[in-house]
Amino acid sequence: MSLTSTLADLATGAARPSEASRKMIRLSALDWFAVGRAGASEPVARILHSQAMVEAGAPQAHLFGGGLAPVRMAALVNGTTSHALDYDDTHFAHIGHPSVAVFPAALAVAEWRECSIADLLEAALIGAEISIRLGLWLGRGHYQAGFHQTATAGTFGAAVAAGRLLGLDGKGMRHALGLAATRAAGLKAQFGTMGKPYNAGLAASGGAEAALLASRGFESNPGALEGEYGFGATHHGAGDEAAAVDGLGERWLFEQVSHKFHACCHGLHAALEAARELDVTAAEIAALRVRTHPRWMSVCNQPAPTTGLGAKFSYSTVLAMQALGHDTARLESYSDAVCADPALRALRERIDVEADAGLTETEAVVDLVRHDGGRASARHDLLAPMSLAARESRLRAKAAALIGGEQAEIVWALLNGDGTAAELGAALAR
Amino acid sequence: MSLTSTLADLATGAARPSEASRKMIRLSALDWFAVGRAGASEPVARILHSQAMVEAGAPQAHLFGGGLAPVRMAALVNGTTSHALDYDDTHFAHIGHPSVAVFPAALAVAEWRECSIADLLEAALIGAEISIRLGLWLGRGHYQAGFHQTATAGTFGAAVAAGRLLGLDGKGMRHALGLAATRAAGLKAQFGTMGKPYNAGLAASGGAEAALLASRGFESNPGALEGEYGFGATHHGAGDEAAAVDGLGERWLFEQVSHKFHACCHGLHAALEAARELDVTAAEIAALRVRTHPRWMSVCNQPAPTTGLGAKFSYSTVLAMQALGHDTARLESYSDAVCADPALRALRERIDVEADAGLTETEAVVDLVRHDGGRASARHDLLAPMSLAARESRLRAKAAALIGGEQAEIVWALLNGDGTAAELGAALAR
Repeated sequence: MSLTSTLADLATGAARPSEASRKMIRLSALDWFAVGRAGASEPVARILHSQAMVEAGAPQAHLFGGGLAPVRMAALVNGTTSHALDYDDTHFAHIGHPSVAVFPAALAVAEWRECSIADLLEAALIGAEISIRLGLWLGRGHYQAGFHQTATAGTFGAAVAAGRLLGLDGKGMRHALGLAATRAAGLKAQFGTMGKPYNAGLAASGGAEAALLASRGFESNPGALEGEYGFGATHHGAGDEAAAVDGLGERWLFEQVSHKFHACCHGLHAALEAARELDVTAAEIAALRVRTHPRWMSVCNQPAPTTGLGAKFSYSTVLAMQALGHDTARLESYSDAVCADPALRALRERIDVEADAGLTETEAVVDLVRHDGGRASARHDLLAPMSLAARESRLRAKAAALIGGEQAEIVWALLNGDGTAAELGAALAR
Repeated sequence: MSLTSTLADLATGAARPSEASRKMIRLSALDWFAVGRAGASEPVARILHSQAMVEAGAPQAHLFGGGLAPVRMAALVNGTTSHALDYDDTHFAHIGHPSVAVFPAALAVAEWRECSIADLLEAALIGAEISIRLGLWLGRGHYQAGFHQTATAGTFGAAVAAGRLLGLDGKGMRHALGLAATRAAGLKAQFGTMGKPYNAGLAASGGAEAALLASRGFESNPGALEGEYGFGATHHGAGDEAAAVDGLGERWLFEQVSHKFHACCHGLHAALEAARELDVTAAEIAALRVRTHPRWMSVCNQPAPTTGLGAKFSYSTVLAMQALGHDTARLESYSDAVCADPALRALRERIDVEADAGLTETEAVVDLVRHDGGRASARHDLLAPMSLAARESRLRAKAAALIGGEQAEIVWALLNGDGTAAELGAALAR
C-alpha cells in the first residue's frame, strides 16, 4: 500500500490513540491557545489580522485578536499568530512545531462544522501525529537543505486534521494529501523575520485549503507525496518509509512533544531547569557556574544586557531573575527595568558561564556554592522524560502567566469537558 | 547588487518596455481573458468558484464565472480557471505559462485599487517579464527535477505585478519577493489532474498575498530568493544570474511569448499550421502525409477516435477537420458528431502520419498530393517568428471562437483604450 493510502487510512478510520497522547494533545491545545493569545499583539500578527479584516467574508471561525473570518483565512491568521512568539511546542523527531500548523486548521474547521472539542482534539492529534511521521520521512536532509518542516510536513498534518473534521472518505483524503503536496512550502531562510511565523500560517491555511477543496470533489495526483516526482523526491526528502509508518496507529510519537517553559532563547532553558532543581534563593548564592554546549556561547551569553530583549539572550540574567523570584514564563518579566535592578546586577556578578563540549545542545549543568560553603550541582536535559502531572502543572502555570489564571482555567476546563469547538473558538477572541 | 534588488528596481521604477512587448501584453491579455471565460464551466473552475462563494468577503475583484471576491481569492479562482483548458500562452524560455499567473493577480489588484487598464498592462508586462527571467534563472534542471515553473517562477511575477499596482517602494518590493520565496510551490506531478490549473491559481494568489502583506509592512528575508538557503538553492535552481539579468529592462523576453491557436493537443499544432499554409480544401486532397517528431506518436496519433476528446489527440482527425472548414480554435468543434461524419472519415483515410527524427518537437512537415497530381509541401516550426499583425488577427479570431465575436471586440477595444481595470473586471463575469 502506498504511503499516502496508509496515512489516509489512519486519517479517516477509527483511531485508538494512547491515553498519554490524548493527554498530551490537551496540554498542547492549552499551550497553543495561550501562546496564540499572547502573540496577538505582535506586529506580524497585526498585519495578518488587518488583512483578514479588510477581506472580511463569512464568519466561520474566530481569530486571535478578535473577529471572525472564513476557515482558510482564520487558519492563516491563527497559525502565524500562534508562532509569532516562538513559544509553542516542538517535536524533535519531526524537527518542527506541530501544534501551530495543525490546531489553527482543525479549530477553524471544527468551529465552522459545529464539531465537539473531543472530535477537534482527536483530529488534531491524528494530524499532528502524521505531520511528525512525515517530518521523520522527509528527514534531517530536508531540514539541512533549507526547508522548514513546521511548514512543509505541517501542511499535510493540517490537511489531515481539517479533512477528518470535514468527514472526507479515504479517496477524498488521498486527494487532499495529493493537493497538499503541490501546496506545501516554507524556507528556513525566513528565520529571524516575520516569515518564520508566517510559515506556520501557510501550513495551516494550505492544509485547510487542500481539505476544503477535496471535500468539494477536487482531484489531485494522490501519488504526489511519495511518487517519482513527488514532494519528497523534489524536496530533498530521505523517503524513509519505515520510519514514517513503524507502529503507526499503535505507537504515538506525539507523546514525545516538548514544551517551552521560559519566554527566552531555547539555549537557556536547560540551565534554568537545572537551577530550578537546586531550589535556591538569591540570598543563598555565593557563586553559580553554568556549563553549557559551546554552540550556545555565541547565541545567548550576553554578560550584562540592559534591555528586555537582551535579557532573553543572557544566562546570567535569566538565572538571576529566576533566583530573585521573577516568573521566567511571563513575557513581561523580561524588561529594561529588571536589567537595571541593583539586586539583579549584584547577583549576576556571581554567575559564571562556561562552554563544555561534553554536553549535548539540550543539556546544562549548574554548580552552586552557598554562602555557608555548601555545594550542590544539578544537571538537566530538555529531552529527559517528564511526568504528565508535572507537565500539566507547568503548562497551566505558563498559560496563567500568559493569559491570566482565570482565562487559563476556563480554557483548561473546556479542553477537558464535553463542549463544542465553537466555545473554544469564542475564547480565542476574548 | 543582489538579484532581488535588481528585479525590485525594475519592478518599481519607470519602465520603458519595447513597443513589441507592449503589443504582446495586450494580445496576451485578450487571449487570457478568452480562455478564462471559456474555462469557467470546467469542473476545477466550478470547485474553486463555489469555495469563493461560500467564503464571500469584500467584493474587491470579479471572478470568471460571475460574482466578486477579495483580491487573494479572485487571483486563486481566476488563475485556476484561466489554465483549466491549458489553452493559454506559453513562453519556452520561461518553461511555463506567464499570463495565467500574472494577470489574475494584476487584474484583481488593479480593479480593487481603481487603476487604469494602461497601468494594469504595464504591471502585468513587468511581472510576466520577471517571471520569465526567473524561469530562465531556475533553468531546465528545476523543471526536470519536478517543479512547474508556471507555479514557482509565476509566484514572483504575480508578486511583482500586484506589488507595482499597490505602489510598493523598493524595500516593500524586496520584502514581497522575499515572502514569495517561502510561498512559491507547485509540482509537475499534478499534470493530468485538477492540480495543474490549480498550480497557476496558487502562483497568482500567492504572489498577490506576498504583495498585499508587504504593503502592510510585512518584513521577510529579502535574500530568500537567491541566498545560500534561498528558493533557487533549495529547489534545484541553476542560478544563472547572467541569464536572468542580461538586457533586463532593455530587451523584453515577453516578445517571444507564444499562443495556442487550436483547442487540441500541442503536438498537433505545427502540423495544423503547416497544412494551413498549403491552403487546401478537402475536395482537392488525394493524399496527405504528416511528418512529426517521434515523441508525439504515442501522444496524439489516435488513428480513428470516435469522441470529441479523442479527436484532440489525433493528427488525421484534426487535419481533416481543418480541411473541411471546422474551426479548430473552437472547443465545440471537437465533438463525437464530427468524428462520426462520413466526409471526415473518408478524408481521414487519405492522411498518413510518420515519425521523423530529423524534426524538433515544435516542427512538422505536411506533404500534399492533389487529385490533379499536383504536389506541395509545407513545413512549420512553432518557434518561427510571426508578425504582430498576423498574431493579432489569429488571436482576435480565437477569442471570437471562444467567447463570441461581439464580446471579443469589446474586450479588445477595452485593452486598447484608456478605460479602467474595473471595466475589464466587470467583463470577466459577463
